[in-house]
Amino acid sequence: MIEILEHGAVRELRLARPPANALSPELIKALSAALAAAAREARAEPGLPASPERPAALVLSGAPGMFSAGLDVPHLLTLDRSGIHDMWHHFYGLLRALAASPLPVVAAITGHSPAGGAVLALYCDLRIMADGDFRIGLNEVRVGLPMPPVIFAAVRRLVGSGPAERLCVGGALMPPTAALRVGLIDEVVPQDQVVERAVAAAAELAALPRTAMDYTRRLARADLVKLFDATGAEVEAMLDAWFTAETQATMRALVERLARKRGAA
Amino acid sequence: MIEILEHGAVRELRLARPPANALSPELIKALSAALAAAAREARAEPGLPASPERPAALVLSGAPGMFSAGLDVPHLLTLDRSGIHDMWHHFYGLLRALAASPLPVVAAITGHSPAGGAVLALYCDLRIMADGDFRIGLNEVRVGLPMPPVIFAAVRRLVGSGPAERLCVGGALMPPTAALRVGLIDEVVPQDQVVERAVAAAAELAALPRTAMDYTRRLARADLVKLFDATGAEVEAMLDAWFTAETQATMRALVERLARKRGAA
Amino acid sequence: MIEILEHGAVRELRLARPPANALSPELIKALSAALAAAAREARAEPGLPASPERPAALVLSGAPGMFSAGLDVPHLLTLDRSGIHDMWHHFYGLLRALAASPLPVVAAITGHSPAGGAVLALYCDLRIMADGDFRIGLNEVRVGLPMPPVIFAAVRRLVGSGPAERLCVGGALMPPTAALRVGLIDEVVPQDQVVERAVAAAAELAALPRTAMDYTRRLARADLVKLFDATGAEVEAMLDAWFTAETQATMRALVERLARKRGAA
Repeated sequence: MIEILEHGAVRELRLARPPANALSPELIKALSAALAAAAREARAEPGLPASPERPAALVLSGAPGMFSAGLDVPHLLTLDRSGIHDMWHHFYGLLRALAASPLPVVAAITGHSPAGGAVLALYCDLRIMADGDFRIGLNEVRVGLPMPPVIFAAVRRLVGSGPAERLCVGGALMPPTAALRVGLIDEVVPQDQVVERAVAAAAELAALPRTAMDYTRRLARADLVKLFDATGAEVEAMLDAWFTAETQATMRALVERLARKRGAA
Repeated sequence: MIEILEHGAVRELRLARPPANALSPELIKALSAALAAAAREARAEPGLPASPERPAALVLSGAPGMFSAGLDVPHLLTLDRSGIHDMWHHFYGLLRALAASPLPVVAAITGHSPAGGAVLALYCDLRIMADGDFRIGLNEVRVGLPMPPVIFAAVRRLVGSGPAERLCVGGALMPPTAALRVGLIDEVVPQDQVVERAVAAAAELAALPRTAMDYTRRLARADLVKLFDATGAEVEAMLDAWFTAETQATMRALVERLARKRGAA
Repeated sequence: MIEILEHGAVRELRLARPPANALSPELIKALSAALAAAAREARAEPGLPASPERPAALVLSGAPGMFSAGLDVPHLLTLDRSGIHDMWHHFYGLLRALAASPLPVVAAITGHSPAGGAVLALYCDLRIMADGDFRIGLNEVRVGLPMPPVIFAAVRRLVGSGPAERLCVGGALMPPTAALRVGLIDEVVPQDQVVERAVAAAAELAALPRTAMDYTRRLARADLVKLFDATGAEVEAMLDAWFTAETQATMRALVERLARKRGAA
């Protein structure tokens, strides 16, 4: 579900769960494992110079035209409370692993990136998105899901309180240029260059004086990591919300709409 | 002093105190009462779908060309300490009611919006302003008034610390495009469409899955509401400032300048 | 090392340490002394109107084409731990004096402004930069220096958490237009007008109702001043970092590169 591609000191983790890189419990765990492996290998030989075998920075990419459609709602609708609990637990663990990654992670947003797709990118170091008829946004509310506080706080950290309120309450999906203007992403490049550009940006970070860069990264991201200090009660609240009539009905309507669209296509 | 106009699920509260919608103690109380009434009616029949009779979102509008000129300084200059105390008390109560409104409020900034006019808009969910030769800004300092901390914090929340310092210390009034650029407002539309656009934006918020939207709104606006936790001492400080020689002289000079301008027109 | 130029109520403090206004311990102390003198004189005759003899606002400027190259690394490399300790102690004192200045300070960024040059401007009230082929940025990491927390927090306050992370971790130097877009500076004007424009902006601040402006400035800048409450441990950490092999090697390589460049020119 994760393809590993090495570009010198930069390791690309490519989401590979067709057709939409929907975040199933398995994909969430696979990405967490890939991040942990990269961190382990990076620390393997302290004191040695960077080498192609040891990653010094990461790129998180998706498929051309589709970074990730977010949580795999059709699948999740088949799970009981215990299954959903596990999913949220592992999803929060993945977000924390991105926030606290000892290696810089550049998101190569290769296409659509709604809800959970956008959320993954929030916790990376940089967000580079493909130009084109793609949408990105925090549309959780439109799917019937209240925005989890740990995710809202990450949006606020990135774009400020006023814009975060608008983005998360209204739940708009927007084109790359609008996302760039509001600060949800950092750069827009032609679609066929988005991975290449992300690899270059990651390589540039990897080439900086390591101790100074590490210290400054930890300093700048400490607030992001700290968000995860007390998320136990939050996961329970998300669970309660998940099984309300409104949320279930809105998610089922969404799944039916998507199924009809696929049938019509 | 407040005209009520119903647009389906959206209720428009239109400031109607000619010529400038200056915020007198009476207008402040009337707007507070209208907000409270809308909140009461919205809660009247829990569980029922939205209906034209029950507002699900609000629009706060003014007169064409003049949203609100801010506090009614000529009138306030005739009040003693007790009268000014009551005014600040009720004004803070109004701002808190906007911040904590259970219904989303979209500001339709139909024209000029200096000082107190801009302040009302700060506490709304969205700010849509009429294009044209209008000015908006936090020019309290230019009127001789120190910026109240609870208002400064709301500006900072909306535009960030750096821009908030510039806007509030310098006290510049600016055209809609500049206000949009700095994030003081969210959208600029032709003057004859500003109410219509605000009603549409409010209707869009009203149509979102209600529980998810309510939760996310409360989460996103909790910091704004919290600002009002301890404003007793602040009101006293504003009172002291109000009766200093500098503030009184600056306000009187302003009132004379406005009177001469009207005489000349 | 500091030229004093009086422009009515505005006093210009012009950095005058050729060729690059590099911040040596002496220049740091001279600028601190000039700020303290201006604050003393401003307070000398309370109650009297502003006069050309008593400064009411300050401009901090540099040489045409070079605001300040930042810390004087070649000189600092000759100092021992005690010398570097004194330098950091005095540099933090200077930054705090700018943050807490009772007089507004407008930075006239007359040209290049990397690292320590940009840092001085962060703590001013406004930043007006010369248009042209100049660079500004927080490139400490590229010089091998971890970003001091008190400086990172000032960047974050000015541009927000997301942009601050990018600017400080990546350490990019950027042209004035890019710095304006991210909010690191407030205005870009033709090079031959930068001091004149800064003086006009300072005069405008000086002409505001004084009590209201002072109160609002203190309110808006309280967070910036508060950053310095506990920087003792921070100075020790910066000292440790300064003498690591990585930092020393990176700084020496920089100095050699600059020397070669000068030799080639």
